[in-house]
Amino acid sequence: VISEREPGRIIAQDAELGFQRSQALVMIQVFTQQGRTTSTKQNLFDALATRLGALGIEGNGIFVGIVENTAADWSFGFGRAQYVEGDLSIPARQ
Amino acid sequence: VISEREPGRIIAQDAELGFQRSQALVMIQVFTQQGRTTSTKQNLFDALATRLGALGIEGNGIFVGIVENTAADWSFGFGRAQYVEGDLSIPARQ
Amino acid sequence: VISEREPGRIIAQDAELGFQRSQALVMIQVFTQQGRTTSTKQNLFDALATRLGALGIEGNGIFVGIVENTAADWSFGFGRAQYVEGDLSIPARQ
Repeated sequence: VISEREPGRIIAQDAELGFQRSQALVMIQVFTQQGRTTSTKQNLFDALATRLGALGIEGNGIFVGIVENTAADWSFGFGRAQYVEGDLSIPARQ
Repeated sequence: VISEREPGRIIAQDAELGFQRSQALVMIQVFTQQGRTTSTKQNLFDALATRLGALGIEGNGIFVGIVENTAADWSFGFGRAQYVEGDLSIPARQ
Repeated sequence: VISEREPGRIIAQDAELGFQRSQALVMIQVFTQQGRTTSTKQNLFDALATRLGALGIEGNGIFVGIVENTAADWSFGFGRAQYVEGDLSIPARQ
């Protein structure tokens, strides 16, 4: 789900990291099932910055936050809870 | 809180469930206090699909995700934490 | 990140608190790392209501919900996981 904001509608600080924020900001919220390792998350962050960099978005404009829930918290269609009802297996994680 | 998106602003896949996504998509994020059982969540998913179906939204266009927090994470007005401060009792769950 | 909604796009009830909702509604979702105490959260709710009140937003129009994740769930730029990789220390909480 992609949303754009007019200038001034995103107020972004550097979180005491000592750099200037770009005005070309991309904030990504990943809403997903729990279970990924820290290493997998680090790989995601790195891949997102690499791919956004190729589109001209600099590293000082990229935020990512992950929010996690459980298998019972998802319905992907038809009113079913696919993980709970066996339509989908819960992914093995590494 | 209801938001609409222009075509192309929601990219939805089938999550390997083997059906085609409708272009008439409704994505619902339920942000609520923890404590509901899996069965209660399944009933919610089913009820949402039934009611949206009555409005012409097909099952292949309905996503629901639940994200949970705790009683201390809510203020419903006036700067108070109503669950913590006793204005509201924490609901019994089944 | 600030978004505005047309009238009718936010449907707010009183959550059985026995007051009428204002039509001048502000809903705030705080997305942050876990670790704050209930008391710190109560102080936040109170400060938000006080500051919004000074701008003319009445207490019956203010909702706040907090959603928490962990240190590994954040990247504040450059594809790095700053809390995990040592660029930022995890704040002490009280």
